[in-house]
This record gives sequence, structure tokens and C-alpha cells, in this order.
Amino acid sequence: MSDKNNENLDSLIHNSDPTHRADTNDPSAHADRNKTEVPYDYRKFESSLRGEDLHRWQREHIKKDDQSKEGYPLNVIVDPAMREMYQIVHNQGLTNVFDRFSEQQPQCNFCAPGLSCQLCANGPCRITKKSQRGVCGVDAHVMVARNFTYRHTTIGTAANCYHALQAARTLRAAGKYPESGLKIREPEKLKKYAEFLGLNINRPLEQIAIDFANLIIDDLHRPNDQESRLVEAFAPSRRKELWRKLNLFPGGAFSEVGFAQTKCMTNLGADPVDFLLTCVRLGVANEFQGLWALDILQEILIGTQEISHRKQNMGLLDPAKVNIITNGHMPLVAHVVIDLASTEEWQQKAREAGAAGLQVMGHVCEGQQLINYSGSQNQSALTGQEGEWLSEEYLLATGCVDLFMFDYNCTVPTLPLYAQRFGTKLMSVDPVIRFPDTEALDFKPEQMKKQASECLERAIESFKQRRSENRNVYVPPHVSDCMVGFSTESVKKALGGSWEPLLEQIKNGNIRGIATLVGCTTARYGQGGSNAFKLAKALIERNILVLSGGCVSAVFEYTGLCKPEAAQEAGQGLRQVCQSLGIPPVLSYGACVDIGKMTHTAMELADVLDIDTNALPLVIGAPEYLEQKAVADACTAVAMGWLVHVAPVPSVTGSEVVVKTLTETTETLGLGKVMVEMDAEKSADLYIEHIEKKRAALGLSANLPKQ
Amino acid sequence: MSDKNNENLDSLIHNSDPTHRADTNDPSAHADRNKTEVPYDYRKFESSLRGEDLHRWQREHIKKDDQSKEGYPLNVIVDPAMREMYQIVHNQGLTNVFDRFSEQQPQCNFCAPGLSCQLCANGPCRITKKSQRGVCGVDAHVMVARNFTYRHTTIGTAANCYHALQAARTLRAAGKYPESGLKIREPEKLKKYAEFLGLNINRPLEQIAIDFANLIIDDLHRPNDQESRLVEAFAPSRRKELWRKLNLFPGGAFSEVGFAQTKCMTNLGADPVDFLLTCVRLGVANEFQGLWALDILQEILIGTQEISHRKQNMGLLDPAKVNIITNGHMPLVAHVVIDLASTEEWQQKAREAGAAGLQVMGHVCEGQQLINYSGSQNQSALTGQEGEWLSEEYLLATGCVDLFMFDYNCTVPTLPLYAQRFGTKLMSVDPVIRFPDTEALDFKPEQMKKQASECLERAIESFKQRRSENRNVYVPPHVSDCMVGFSTESVKKALGGSWEPLLEQIKNGNIRGIATLVGCTTARYGQGGSNAFKLAKALIERNILVLSGGCVSAVFEYTGLCKPEAAQEAGQGLRQVCQSLGIPPVLSYGACVDIGKMTHTAMELADVLDIDTNALPLVIGAPEYLEQKAVADACTAVAMGWLVHVAPVPSVTGSEVVVKTLTETTETLGLGKVMVEMDAEKSADLYIEHIEKKRAALGLSANLPKQ
Repeated sequence: MSDKNNENLDSLIHNSDPTHRADTNDPSAHADRNKTEVPYDYRKFESSLRGEDLHRWQREHIKKDDQSKEGYPLNVIVDPAMREMYQIVHNQGLTNVFDRFSEQQPQCNFCAPGLSCQLCANGPCRITKKSQRGVCGVDAHVMVARNFTYRHTTIGTAANCYHALQAARTLRAAGKYPESGLKIREPEKLKKYAEFLGLNINRPLEQIAIDFANLIIDDLHRPNDQESRLVEAFAPSRRKELWRKLNLFPGGAFSEVGFAQTKCMTNLGADPVDFLLTCVRLGVANEFQGLWALDILQEILIGTQEISHRKQNMGLLDPAKVNIITNGHMPLVAHVVIDLASTEEWQQKAREAGAAGLQVMGHVCEGQQLINYSGSQNQSALTGQEGEWLSEEYLLATGCVDLFMFDYNCTVPTLPLYAQRFGTKLMSVDPVIRFPDTEALDFKPEQMKKQASECLERAIESFKQRRSENRNVYVPPHVSDCMVGFSTESVKKALGGSWEPLLEQIKNGNIRGIATLVGCTTARYGQGGSNAFKLAKALIERNILVLSGGCVSAVFEYTGLCKPEAAQEAGQGLRQVCQSLGIPPVLSYGACVDIGKMTHTAMELADVLDIDTNALPLVIGAPEYLEQKAVADACTAVAMGWLVHVAPVPSVTGSEVVVKTLTETTETLGLGKVMVEMDAEKSADLYIEHIEKKRAALGLSANLPKQ
Repeated sequence: MSDKNNENLDSLIHNSDPTHRADTNDPSAHADRNKTEVPYDYRKFESSLRGEDLHRWQREHIKKDDQSKEGYPLNVIVDPAMREMYQIVHNQGLTNVFDRFSEQQPQCNFCAPGLSCQLCANGPCRITKKSQRGVCGVDAHVMVARNFTYRHTTIGTAANCYHALQAARTLRAAGKYPESGLKIREPEKLKKYAEFLGLNINRPLEQIAIDFANLIIDDLHRPNDQESRLVEAFAPSRRKELWRKLNLFPGGAFSEVGFAQTKCMTNLGADPVDFLLTCVRLGVANEFQGLWALDILQEILIGTQEISHRKQNMGLLDPAKVNIITNGHMPLVAHVVIDLASTEEWQQKAREAGAAGLQVMGHVCEGQQLINYSGSQNQSALTGQEGEWLSEEYLLATGCVDLFMFDYNCTVPTLPLYAQRFGTKLMSVDPVIRFPDTEALDFKPEQMKKQASECLERAIESFKQRRSENRNVYVPPHVSDCMVGFSTESVKKALGGSWEPLLEQIKNGNIRGIATLVGCTTARYGQGGSNAFKLAKALIERNILVLSGGCVSAVFEYTGLCKPEAAQEAGQGLRQVCQSLGIPPVLSYGACVDIGKMTHTAMELADVLDIDTNALPLVIGAPEYLEQKAVADACTAVAMGWLVHVAPVPSVTGSEVVVKTLTETTETLGLGKVMVEMDAEKSADLYIEHIEKKRAALGLSANLPKQ
């Protein structure tokens, strides 16, 4: 559908207005200094590649090229759509994420290892050989551990728990205002978990929804000296015992965040290990009051995940249609938008405006979730997932996005500049977000239908504007097929309702173990999706089943690893299993916030085996982690007893104590530990080593020859 | 009492062991590089000055010397005890706060104006002319405003609210466990406020205490979409109306902190003004759920403040006695310790250990509070307030502190090194604190008597150790007299039960207006107490009544400004008022957390005048602010509509938008604004200008000639 737009490409490229460059509010203002010759002709190359040819090229490209500074960023970008659009944007001299990364080099040698502090007015202080303490007397270890706490872990935990809070408010509104547009799509799931929490389920469904939501809201706001009811209900017994022993059993998440922030007052705490254990405690809250809760709540509202074939990438944009992108992590408004957009009434409105129809695509994690939920899978207006966070600016530069609506996090700050230049209507849909010059439609769950209608009206107006201005549009012609919708329930269902077939394959060694590859993609050298891809490929080749979540899911989708055909790239054992079940070797669980679902799967496996979670042949990988939620999630994994691989290098290397605590000591306490490794091959070796150690401890079959 | 120890001085100085210097865990490890010749002979000079001679010298010293880099730090230190001990410590080559400040020069030009970000793994990023956005696209304005939010305001608000939470838990324990050692010293105050909050006060006092405490605990944990009951009950009506209009009326403090932290996720909020207004909203919670609540709670437990003559400074240490220093901001355990220490039983135990007795002194804000509360004023074991936060290391270097117990904040991280070297037993007494190699006695309000006894036992053991080792001790022979204990109630009582006499003096122009000088002291050039002192002096000379709180109270105490005799230094109008009432021109309200009491006074004055709080001839000054609580308090002042003077320069100067919003725009919304000025004389001019503008608007008498 997009080939017809190639004629617009040249005009878009030449559309750059050099007179704009003096305006700092224009995206082109500061980007042209680093403009270099682009060594690829995208029109002859990337655009022409499709399907298996594209995937072959991606593999050769990543194998052949060194993914370091030389040749950056095209040496790390494997998304064909982003490759094209990067070159278009770069050639226009527009500010964009990859060029900004180049501009920021070299980065600060004090901030990178965590050795600078800006907390008090005696600072800023830096730790150097010459001055080994800040003005207050803080040393490198406390400085690094404290930075890790208030910059990363409390923010990430707060954000995931805020997400759960908003989801709970939404479920409550669905119970209180059944006419609001929200639906309780999974009454049985609601009843199951409500009963699990001790609620009376012999009441009207709406009342159960209200009670269940209120219990979660109350738990999030519980004082920190009272044990969390959600943690008590859902965490594994052996873990709870350990957490109580180590003083890691949290109270209410917001009180815990307040407690941890209090610890970060200057001249208050001075024990680096205590800061780190506080982060692990936050990790427990992050999981069971954040991820776990929001996953259940959203499934009740949008439907449990179902395995399904879906489409991914920018080629889904259709210049003839009203195009809505919904971005973020909390597809609650979005779900109602798609629900309405799927009606003949709204399609007719779009046609009346001169469009061929109206479609919605989800960007970043929101898109991953929407293509996974059974509820949104059934909605005809949803056409697919559209891209990872790195591609937002490039997406808007297509000129084909009429409405970009976004709830909380992963909307880059330059979008208003792009929206203005390329004619996109921006709208934020959660009160936590404020963007300059951007309409804010604050999420009111009891008024969903009304608010969703407003979104659709804005999109149609914006489309009309695009048409009336006859604006240039270029859609890179790339769409990937992928099999998605994996989750604890859908995988178990695919296995015939029992974990035994999977465990049997693990026991017999066809599957050596499981790696969850989760998180973002970064703009760093060696990353940009390429590290996630290389690692996933290396793991499946060695018979490690991969579960994915977050922007890395998009990487696995546009590189073909989420297609059943990718089984051919797996090692012999895993290949057999995938082929017999007709599934890919990388199972997309969806978003970064679906980590709760992976934890769920792991906990069920541990339950069947009657072992503690830390005994599983499992590694948690965040090969291109970016944001603070990822740090909180890593703390969750440490709490659960798992090995967590992270790259890039987190900003803790300035303290030997912190590094040793996170990479060694926590494991001796029965917790997990962190492993840092930038090289994908070496990372895979370390995953295997850990998994084989766990297999050996469980008495499972010894290592197979490397394939 | 301390002159007898001068003989120990030389041996202490020569006690420094150069072999220790290679050990980074030794306080002397890194300090000797910057060792310079000390231009004062303290034994001939500071030690010999007393009383009026000392105060005269302080004034000459500060007037004469430029307080900049040249001659630092002795050009900024006006505390005679700290002057002596600094020189002793410095000459031993020990790491200490002033020398570390020198070592940290020059400080980072990116961090100082707020132009660096370390939130995500694409960073750290710096804003430069060349790269005006971080990798994600964040600009200077969002970066600066976001840093201000998560580094300073959320931490400060969380800390003050945590303090209120602990105080509420303590009151609840006093109700539940009347035998615990805690007492309800102010039943009438409890009933008054309980009734104000709509509680039934026709119940047993213990039950009222429990209900009142629970209401506060519940309010702190209220979800952020429900209006705070404490704000509703205690904030002025006109302010509440404005806050509702501007969306600044907060819900529960911890939920608000979580919400604000969520906003600080990368790629989430992108509106600098929204970040700053979020901080003002936190400022409302900080006041009415934090400061206000904790002030009431602590007075109920330790007694309402009473005007009284007290003593201050290191000379209170007595080598013959068991010396306990209690440090921090939450003198709940400390109060019970003093209660027990004042009994013949514990004095006898001290004597049995060979001591002349057992005494307790409060350090920093804890000490300011303890000398102000009527309850602790009556306790014979409390001998006074002992110093500001800058002097902690110097205090321990006297070798005369047997137990240093500390609750939350303002205990510097090097104290374990000093404690080890100089034989002090360190003990933290709140679960929020962890120090390495330091016993933690986690505050259990229901076991106060038992825990306080443990503190006293440790102190006596430590004294015995000191005696058995015949350790060197040197106590600088300085004690200041001061009149303290001012608060809304005690001032009103002194005025005969009505604000009219004070308002009459304001109306007739004898008192032009009021300045609250609050906050810390910093180690920066031009500060170290000297800026606070110079500003207070300049203000009283111009007939501005000063209320003080925080470490600056110590400055005003050791410089004689808190003595009634200081009225002589005031302008003619203020002098007359002070002399007729027998009060000093600087009224110590106590600690930084007693800012809630100053707000109370201001609100009562505005009520009597039937004006909004922003119409008062009042300036809030933090002339040497240091920590994050001070930033939260500044946000409170902006919410209340007040001009807030801060120095040093806060780390926001990298953004014109942030500077303009805080120093101009907020005032146009009916809020207050921030003013930054480093020079004390110029600051005083700006205070006067603001106060005269407010006077004129109220139709009060025109400016008097400058005196």
C-alpha cells in the first residue's frame, strides 16, 4: 500500500528549509554539524529487500560489520524502515536520536561511573584520586549506591506502581460506570484473582471489580510497616521467607518509595549495601504491586493474551487512511479508541472526511500489548505494532501520522518539533504527562467513551488538514509478519494445559533453559537493536528458549525471529520443539511491563518442580536496557534469585563495593545477581554457563555438544 | 569546666600518626595535600575571647575580611569553638568538611547549573552550545526542571513527611502503650487539634492520641486523587482556593511523591513549568502533611515551646561526665533518653562508672528543638545545644563525646572514621539510617524506655573505655547564652495573649516586617555561617524582626544575636520593641523543621489582618541552604505566596525558562517566587524592597529613613 508514495520521497528530502536552522525550536537547528556522507543508497537497497531476502541481509550485515563507532549508526540499525527514515531525517539536518548520541560524545567520565553527586548546595562533587570524598564526606561507594537508588530504582518502581494504580482505577470505573466504554472482558480471571485475595466473589461482577481494584489501590498506599497483601498473596513461599529474613518484604509501594527517597537525603544513610538492599526491597514491590498487578488488571480489561499472527513496522501506515499511533505502556484509553474506531460509525466518519478508512497502530510497548491481548486482536481497526522507541522521530518524519496519542513513558521530548514540521496532532492521555504546546486529555476512566471519541475527532481533523495542505508523505514499505501473544496462560494452553511437555523438553535437554530478553533498545555503539538481535540469535542456536518483552520484541519481530520459520535458526533440540509446536524460538510476551507475565511463567515452572525460583535454569537479560523502570525490574529479578544480564554498563562502576555487592554478594544471600557484558557472544556463553550450573544442581542432563 | 584540659591539647595535636595516611578508611588519608599554614594561633586568640569581647571580634572579623577564597575557611568561621577545632583537625591532616570543599574546587560547570542528566543508559548527557539536547532529545529546560524535581524536591518532601509519619507512630504508641516511656505532655493541644480535624474528643486521652495519629498516618498514605484532609483542615481558605484552581491541592504525600517520581521517568514529561508546579504541589504536602503535622505531634509529646534562657556550644562538654550527643531532627528517642538520664538512678550509674554525672546535649536541629520544648527544658540532664552540622567532625575530635546517637539526617558520612579515632560510640536510632560499622537501634516507639536505657548503657560503657584508655581530650572553652523557645504560642503569650501589640508595632513602622532566616550553613566561600550572620545583622539594623530555624539558629546563638542585649544592634524601632519586651531581635523558633511553626505564626497574622498570606510584609530567607528538605521548604514558601531568598545559587541556572518561572512567573499566578542573591547587604536591600512593597499595598506607614 505504500509503494505508491515513493514519488514523494525526493520532494520530502528536498523540503528542508535552511532558513529554519537558526530557530532552536526547530528540529533542524543543531543537527547539521555532524552531517556525514551516508554510505548507503536506501532507495536502491533497503527498500528493495523483502521477507527472507531482508532477513538474510540483516544477518549478514550484523555478522559482517563491526558495530562500533565506525559506520555508526547504520551499522547498528537493522530495522529496514528506520534505516530509510534515519537517512531521510539525517540528510535534512534534523535533530534525531542517533545523531544526538554522536554529538554527546565523549560522555562525562564522572557521571558515567556514578562518581558525581548533585544533591546538596555544597556540591556538585566528584570523586577523583585527589579528592576521594565529597564535601559532606561521602565516599565513592555511598555516592554510587545512593545515585542508583534515587535516580533509577525509586523512579522506576514508582512508575510501574503508578501504572498499576491507573489500571486499578480503570477497573474500578469499569465496575462503577459500565456505560463508560470500559468492559470487563475476563470475568473469570477477575473472579479467580479476587478469590485468591480473599474477596467475596458471590457478588455482582461489577462489585467484584470495584472490590478488587480497591484492594490493589489500598495495598499500593499501605504504610511501609505493614506487609503488602499483594506480595503475601502472589509471591512464592520460599522467597517470602527469605525476604522476611533479609528485611526485604515491602509494605505499600508508595510508602516504600518515600522511605527510600528519605534515605537519599544527604548526610543520612552511609551504608552502600543498605542502599542496594533497599533497591531489592523496592524490586519486590515493583513486581507484585506493579508489574504483576497491572498485568492482571489490563488482561481483565483487554483480554488475556492469545497466540496469534500479527504485523509489525512502519509499512502499516497507509497514506489513504486516517492513521492513529498510540504510544506508551498503558493502552487503556487506546483500547477504547480502537474499540470505537472498529465500528462502522467511525469508519464512515473517516470516509466522509475523504479517507479510505481509519486505522490504529500501537507504538513501542503499547503496540506490543495491543497485538497480544485477545480483546484488541479482535478489533478490526488495530492493524499492528509499529516500531520501537528509537524510531519515533523517524516515524513522524513520514508525514503520515495524523494523531500520535501517548500515555505514560517513552515519548521523546522532540516530538512537538516533529509534529509541527510534519503535521501530526499530538495528544497526551494521562495526567502524569505534560508536553509543551500539546493538548492534554487527562485520562478519566469513567468518561472513556467520550474521551476516546475526542481522540478520533482530532485524528480525523488532522487527516483533513493533511489532505487540504497536500502534504508530502513517504512510507517505508516494510511490514514484518510475526507470531505473538505468548503468556503463561497461552503457552500452557498451547502445551495442552500442562507444563509437563515443556519441562520434559528441558529435562531431556532439547531445551537447555530459558532466557527472558527484555527491555529497550539504546542508541549506543554496538546497540540500536543489534545487540539484542545478536544475543537472541546466539541463544536460540544454543537451545535456549527466549521470551521477549519491550522494544526488543520489535527487534525480534522485524528481524524475523518471532516467525515460526525462525525455528530453522535454532539449535537442534529447540528446533525440534518449535517445529513440533509450530512456534518461533523467540516467544514475544509483549511489553517491558509484561515482565510480570514472564515472572508468572517462571513461578509456575518452579511450582511444578517444587523448587525455589532461584534454582531454575533461567537468565534474565536486558541487553539494551535504557530507562529507570528497567533498573527496578533488574532489582525484581535479583529479589527473585535470578541472574540478570545488563548492557550497557550501568552507572555503578565507580564503586568496587557496589559492583561486588550486585554481582556477587547478593547471590550468597539467596538473591540473584547482576552480570554486565557488552559482547553478545560472550553474554551467551555466560547465560549457558549459568543455565548449565542450575541444570547440574537439579540433576538434569549434562551439556550437549555445542551446535 | 574545660580549661583544665588545655594541657591535653598539644598531645592531641601531636597524636596524629603519619603511618595511617595510606589507609583510605582513615580520616587522615587524603587531607594533607592541601595543608596550609594556619594564620591564627587559636590558643592565644580564640580561646581567650569571651562574651562581649568575642562578639565584638566576630563582628570586626566579618566586617573586615573578604569572605571569599582567600583566607578560607577561617574567614567564614565565626563559631569560636569550630575555629579552634578546625585548626586542630586540619593540622592533624584529617579529612574534614572545609578542607574537602577546597579539594573539590573547581566544581563541575555542567552539574552546577543543572545541565547534566544521568537518568538513562544513553547518557550521561550534557547540554553545551554544540549539543543543545540530550540523546533522548531533552533540552536544557526540561533537564534542569526534572533534576530539581527528583534530586531535591521529592527527596525533601519525602523526608519531612517520613518525619511526620514517625512522630505519628510515636504518638500512637504513647496512646497504646502508656508504660512505654512516652508521655502525652500536652493533652489540651492534642484535644484542640483532634477536634479541629473532626475527631470525637469525648474519649479517653489515649484513644484520642491513637485516633489523631491514625488520621495523620492515613492522610500521608491517601491516594493522590483524594484531597489531603490535613491540607483541607489547616491551610488558609484563600490559598486552598488558589491551589485548587492551579491543580496544586495535593493528595497523600507519599502518593504525590510517587506521582512526581513517575513524571521524572525519561521520555515522559517534557514541560519544565509542569515540573516546577509539581514541586509547588509537593511543597503544599511538605508543609501540612510534613512540617505542620510533625511540629504538632512533637509538641504533644515533648511539650509546647517556652521562651527560656539556654546555653549553646562545645564548651558544654565536660570531660568529667558521661557526654551524650543526640543528633538529627526527631528527638523522640532522645527525649526519653534525657528523661531517664535526669533520674537519680542513671546519674548514680554514671557515678558508679567513675563519672561526675551524665549529661545530654543536642546537636544541629535536634538540639535546637530540645532546648525549646518545655518538656525537655525541665529535664536536668539536658545541658544545651551544641553546634551546627558543619562542626560534627570537629566535635568528635574533642575526644570528649562518649555516645553520639542520631536519628534522621545531618549526620556526616565520615563520623565512623572520627568515632574510631577519637573513641566515640556511634548509634543510629531510626530504621531509615544505616551507617557502616555502626550499631543500629531501630526506633520502636512501643519500647522507648528499654531502647533509651540501651543508649545510656552504651554511653556509660564508652565513658569507661575513655577513662580506661586515658584518652586525650580537649574541649574548646566556649559557651554562649541565648534566649530561645519562640513559637506562635510562646510569642503570643509574651505579647499578652494577642497579636495586636506586634501588629501595632508593624503598623506604626517600628517593625517594618518579618524575615524568617532558616536552613543550614554551607562550607562554600562566603558562607560557613558568615552569610547568615551578616544578613541577620543587616536586617535587624533595618528594623526587620528575624525568626530563625535550623543550623542558622546556632550561628545566631554563638554570635550573640539571640541574646536580649542584641537589641542594641537593632534599628531604633525594633530596638525599642525588643527592649520593652526583653527579647532579642532574632527569635529562635528552633530547627529547620520548625518552619511549620513560623508558617503558623504568619498564618495567624494574616488571619487577624484578614488578608491572604501573600500580602504579609514577610520574606523567607535561606541564606545558606544546603539540603533537599530546604528545597522542599522553599517550594512550600512559593505555595504560600512568599518571596524566598536562597543562597548559594541553586542548580537551576542552566535554564532561562526555569529561572524565569521560579523568579517571576509563579508570582503572577498568586504564588510566591524565588530570589537568588549571594551578597548579604544586597539581600537585605531586596528584603526591604519586598517588605515595603507589601506594606504599601496594605496602606501601612511609609518607609522610615535608613538607620
